Amino acid sequence: MFRVELLNIGTELLLGNVVNTHASYLGHKLTELGATITRQVCINDTREDILEAFRQGIQKADLLITTGGLGPTSDDITRDLVAELFQLKMKLDDRAMANIKARARRRGTAILESMKCQANVPEIATVLYNENGTAPGFMIPLSKTVDGRVEAVSGSLTPGTKIQCSWIVMLPGPPRELRPMFEKQVYPWIQTEFKTQLPLIECRVLKVAGKGESTIAEKLEPLLKGLPGLEIGYCARPNEVDVRLYVCGTDKSDIQKTVDLAEAKTREALGSDIFGFGRDTLEEVVVKMLQKQKQTVTTAESCTGGFLSHRITMVSGSSDVFRKGFVVYSNDAKATMLGVPGHLLVEYGAVSEPVVKSMAENALRKAEADFALAITGIAGPTGGSDEKPVGTVYIALATRTGVEVQHHKYNFERETFKFVTSQTALNMLRLKLKDSSL
Amino acid sequence: MFRVELLNIGTELLLGNVVNTHASYLGHKLTELGATITRQVCINDTREDILEAFRQGIQKADLLITTGGLGPTSDDITRDLVAELFQLKMKLDDRAMANIKARARRRGTAILESMKCQANVPEIATVLYNENGTAPGFMIPLSKTVDGRVEAVSGSLTPGTKIQCSWIVMLPGPPRELRPMFEKQVYPWIQTEFKTQLPLIECRVLKVAGKGESTIAEKLEPLLKGLPGLEIGYCARPNEVDVRLYVCGTDKSDIQKTVDLAEAKTREALGSDIFGFGRDTLEEVVVKMLQKQKQTVTTAESCTGGFLSHRITMVSGSSDVFRKGFVVYSNDAKATMLGVPGHLLVEYGAVSEPVVKSMAENALRKAEADFALAITGIAGPTGGSDEKPVGTVYIALATRTGVEVQHHKYNFERETFKFVTSQTALNMLRLKLKDSSL
Repeated sequence: MFRVELLNIGTELLLGNVVNTHASYLGHKLTELGATITRQVCINDTREDILEAFRQGIQKADLLITTGGLGPTSDDITRDLVAELFQLKMKLDDRAMANIKARARRRGTAILESMKCQANVPEIATVLYNENGTAPGFMIPLSKTVDGRVEAVSGSLTPGTKIQCSWIVMLPGPPRELRPMFEKQVYPWIQTEFKTQLPLIECRVLKVAGKGESTIAEKLEPLLKGLPGLEIGYCARPNEVDVRLYVCGTDKSDIQKTVDLAEAKTREALGSDIFGFGRDTLEEVVVKMLQKQKQTVTTAESCTGGFLSHRITMVSGSSDVFRKGFVVYSNDAKATMLGVPGHLLVEYGAVSEPVVKSMAENALRKAEADFALAITGIAGPTGGSDEKPVGTVYIALATRTGVEVQHHKYNFERETFKFVTSQTALNMLRLKLKDSSL
Repeated sequence: MFRVELLNIGTELLLGNVVNTHASYLGHKLTELGATITRQVCINDTREDILEAFRQGIQKADLLITTGGLGPTSDDITRDLVAELFQLKMKLDDRAMANIKARARRRGTAILESMKCQANVPEIATVLYNENGTAPGFMIPLSKTVDGRVEAVSGSLTPGTKIQCSWIVMLPGPPRELRPMFEKQVYPWIQTEFKTQLPLIECRVLKVAGKGESTIAEKLEPLLKGLPGLEIGYCARPNEVDVRLYVCGTDKSDIQKTVDLAEAKTREALGSDIFGFGRDTLEEVVVKMLQKQKQTVTTAESCTGGFLSHRITMVSGSSDVFRKGFVVYSNDAKATMLGVPGHLLVEYGAVSEPVVKSMAENALRKAEADFALAITGIAGPTGGSDEKPVGTVYIALATRTGVEVQHHKYNFERETFKFVTSQTALNMLRLKLKDSSL
């Protein structure tokens, strides 16, 4: 077992102002590598707490990963405390300093004295350069004697302390700085540095849309029962489930065989409900299919307010397949921007099958696209009625040959409501594209 | 200082399948009460880890709050381990058992043997009945001698151990069970039980847009230095910084005076860069200002692809102020949907000041809105040139009397690029609305 302890430093995390997403992000990545997170600890930016957490963190785990505390402000004292605790000589890193200067120049801001301290790194550390911010991370090797006891360091570490840990990896706090740094620099390093300690594993994630977790589990479990070393995991998000096939063992070819068989059985059982693999998103899959078939899609959104077009345009290269989107958040907008007939709006209401059909057909024509997705519904919390309660939503997919409509009731708060609704719309398009490519 | 340690028990949290929202929820609530969370620890459902975490947890904090491990499945062993560690006699609680039976009856499911163990509670505990699930929580008083040392317990707790903690509060893991239980039963109990220990605190969060963390700190720190008991904290997100003013003390009117003074000085120093308070979002603030002034906004988005209209429509009630949005992801869309003159697109290119101006002016006219925000830029990773590198973006705000344009270079991956760009657009509108309301 390769044991990792995770230490999150930052008072804002304990005050509850910010949700700690580092734990789940790193947990996911490290599990993928075959590591086990044995403990995650979060502490305040105070001297005694930081020192105590480092003292504890190095005792039981093979690797200590810390997040936060490396920035330029007065509460970022971790760098100095680690130097003190492990008696590390610090030096100014030229490349880190050049990065700080370059970023300030690009922003047209002055280089403040407080920013410079971020280029101070331990001499013995491997520096992790930051592509998305000023504070570099670093990896510190811990020197110890053969039996794992610290021999004679002064500082705040008691001589004779047992150290299990051989490296400390320190990452900056902002997720958009931490994540690429971890993926590009730390992840491959762990694979190499701890090669002999990491168990052999193979993990495949199949992504499923349109089926619930229990339904999937009920189908799969009897089929996959008894495959040696196989663990099946599920991660359910609204209208999307990851099926994780995880095999741990000692023989590479056995593991391979098991996971291949498990994947084949899963694909057979779930068929076209599987939309992707690994980290695929539904929007990526749909954009790729459209690119391949040289076709385009347009959107006409009421209650999702642009979230569907946002998801499509999150995919690099989406401009090949998406050119126009209509956000029609009022009756007037549906009439004037798309040409939905007024009598339909009056007779059936904006949230109805005839209106969503008309939205899709008109958007298709106006945008001269091959497919049009239209959405109209009641996101809530207000605006519902007995006949059309909050959560009611109509979704239409128009093609040159016809329109299909789905009608759902999604009882979620607004953000999830938008996600689930756009997910259903994208999945309708995916299934249509799959059929038309056969 | 009233110190709380938070212990989250559950392997799924460390595997990264689930985001730990308990920490931020309880952090927020406890801070409100004046308590300080000194540490949050998350561990796996294994015997040794659970025992060790309890042993550590009671040593330094006044109150230990645990989540998870109380359910009916085989990995929920916490209840038994706590009984073992503190030598607690257990008993079957009739009301908890009645609740388990009533819930099973309502669902039409059988009462499994494994479910009954949930009604087993320590004899000395105060039981926290569960309105939304089967597992009750409980609160265990810790007996100790006057100097806080455990006298002569056997079990796994070493005699002579120093205990700071006087109560352990154990809550079930599912958020929808934990939250009402905490709010109705534990929150008021803490207020009474620890009345004399709870310090007086006041915490205010001011939200800032358009300035970086270092710039803000450099301005504020000299001004706020020396205010008694004041702690300043920062939490930086792209194009948004929270400034946290936190005062802890013994005299209510002193604290009030200090925090009022700190807030006044901060407001003076940062002026209109402060857009909100507490948990406000920029889109909420903008929608509220528009509602108050009975005005409307429309959007014309190229590179943000609907993300700006999505943010606006995340605010409940936004339909009062937002009716139409144009997602114009191609030159043709800009021309046909908005009427941007073809010669501007040819002469200056889609990412240019004349085009963004025309987009805003035409959107304003077409949507008959009071304000129009238009965005055109190169999100990347491809599509840049020497003259207009990736990250180049033009943002325009049109009103009935004119258009203002900002030009930026935002070097972020796509998601952050969209956030930062929409943040700047919303902030332009906020500042304009602020001026027009004077």
